[in-house]
Amino acid sequence: MISRPFEYRFIVQLHDTDAAGRLFFAHLFRHAHDAYEALMREVGQPLPALIAEQTRLLPLTHAEADYLQPIQHGERISVEVEVLELRRRSFSLGYRFLDAHGHLVARARTVHVQIALEPGDSHTLAPELRAALELHLVTAPTE
Amino acid sequence: MISRPFEYRFIVQLHDTDAAGRLFFAHLFRHAHDAYEALMREVGQPLPALIAEQTRLLPLTHAEADYLQPIQHGERISVEVEVLELRRRSFSLGYRFLDAHGHLVARARTVHVQIALEPGDSHTLAPELRAALELHLVTAPTE
Amino acid sequence: MISRPFEYRFIVQLHDTDAAGRLFFAHLFRHAHDAYEALMREVGQPLPALIAEQTRLLPLTHAEADYLQPIQHGERISVEVEVLELRRRSFSLGYRFLDAHGHLVARARTVHVQIALEPGDSHTLAPELRAALELHLVTAPTE
Amino acid sequence: MISRPFEYRFIVQLHDTDAAGRLFFAHLFRHAHDAYEALMREVGQPLPALIAEQTRLLPLTHAEADYLQPIQHGERISVEVEVLELRRRSFSLGYRFLDAHGHLVARARTVHVQIALEPGDSHTLAPELRAALELHLVTAPTE
Repeated sequence: MISRPFEYRFIVQLHDTDAAGRLFFAHLFRHAHDAYEALMREVGQPLPALIAEQTRLLPLTHAEADYLQPIQHGERISVEVEVLELRRRSFSLGYRFLDAHGHLVARARTVHVQIALEPGDSHTLAPELRAALELHLVTAPTE
Repeated sequence: MISRPFEYRFIVQLHDTDAAGRLFFAHLFRHAHDAYEALMREVGQPLPALIAEQTRLLPLTHAEADYLQPIQHGERISVEVEVLELRRRSFSLGYRFLDAHGHLVARARTVHVQIALEPGDSHTLAPELRAALELHLVTAPTE
Repeated sequence: MISRPFEYRFIVQLHDTDAAGRLFFAHLFRHAHDAYEALMREVGQPLPALIAEQTRLLPLTHAEADYLQPIQHGERISVEVEVLELRRRSFSLGYRFLDAHGHLVARARTVHVQIALEPGDSHTLAPELRAALELHLVTAPTE
Repeated sequence: MISRPFEYRFIVQLHDTDAAGRLFFAHLFRHAHDAYEALMREVGQPLPALIAEQTRLLPLTHAEADYLQPIQHGERISVEVEVLELRRRSFSLGYRFLDAHGHLVARARTVHVQIALEPGDSHTLAPELRAALELHLVTAPTE
């Protein structure tokens, strides 16, 4: 099975920018989360249902980003999302932000940990969530 | 009893501005809501408790703003909040945004309606909320 | 010529909502502006170029919204944008927010006024902008 | 000379939270940047002037955060900011987010690199900026 990155696209809106004329850095994380929501929708694990059911949550425990090139108002950005790690009760996602020429302008990483809201609920990732995320898991290069 | 406007202050942050070099219009409403939250805290009706209790909510049914002067990064803005109307199950708030020289740079208005989340709960504003809001009710000029 | 509303679609993201479990009211204006940016792109008057050229700006002088139904995380919203008024140096836009069943859940209105950044520049709407906006101008009902 | 962290305080607003009932992770970075802006104001290097002058910019090249405890609506958060590294043309800041009981609920780090906007301008941190940041530089423990 060949795993491919999930692709998400957006256009940089006026409210994404600031008076310095570029994307305000924190908004990159908002777009990363939009890409994560889109991926979860695509693999049949939509966040709205997960949150409304109030049994399990997948809060972020870590987030980071590197900004390589200024991102301007009106740019068409493509985000490639991959599952970098899939552990017993957590997973991490990698995001590559590419401009219209395919140049890498930023990258980000988020770590999500499952917590049970009801005592007695499992702390382990649900099997269907694990199976869904495996579709976009980075495959280690074979030797 | 003389009612006075409630005062709330903020500094325009970089993320409040956009590539046109001014406050992005929608962020004025965010600051108006921060002023409303501060007022509710001051009159002993903090929103976090109200929302966490999940018995009554006070959602907005209307919001509007007039933008009179461009608002720049770094400006120190003072917001004067008044209760414009106090009805049986709704109230409206007026906000005047003043710059450091006391010039009016924007104004806003929000309308809040009480809804009961449990059947059988009252739709009427709670007496303690009504009493609290009366402290900042605009008094009609006497002749 | 029959003028039709411009259509813009979005999905309500997690960051659009707040602890009360609904869309935070100010974020409706962010989506309205995204719809406006999409319309301007479609009619050949993209905002990024307009702002970067620094000759003319179209700042908002007024914004308002009515919230008719709670808007939830994950909802697919369709926005119909129309030009309500087209004056010598200003125009106003109307936005109707419809849920997946076609029910009106919110509406908004914004007023934009052209200002010249260079002395001597015209305060009148550029002819090509006027022509572009006319494509989505509400046509008065004929008798 | 004993260097101390700079302190910045904020209250978690409704718009900081999401439908899961906690601070939306990306908003932590917005508050970190507000703390950075406050620090720069205090040390006499206000960002608005820096950005308006358009000679030098200090864009972020990296940002990261760890989320240790859920942060709730209405919480009073204190942010301790320190300069972690001060290099020839870049610096990094560390942020510790403490709740009302002094418990660490999150931490963040940002890296800022000076870029010259005019050819010929220096890429080295301005001496007055360097001196200002030294006031909050973490001092290595002496043995």
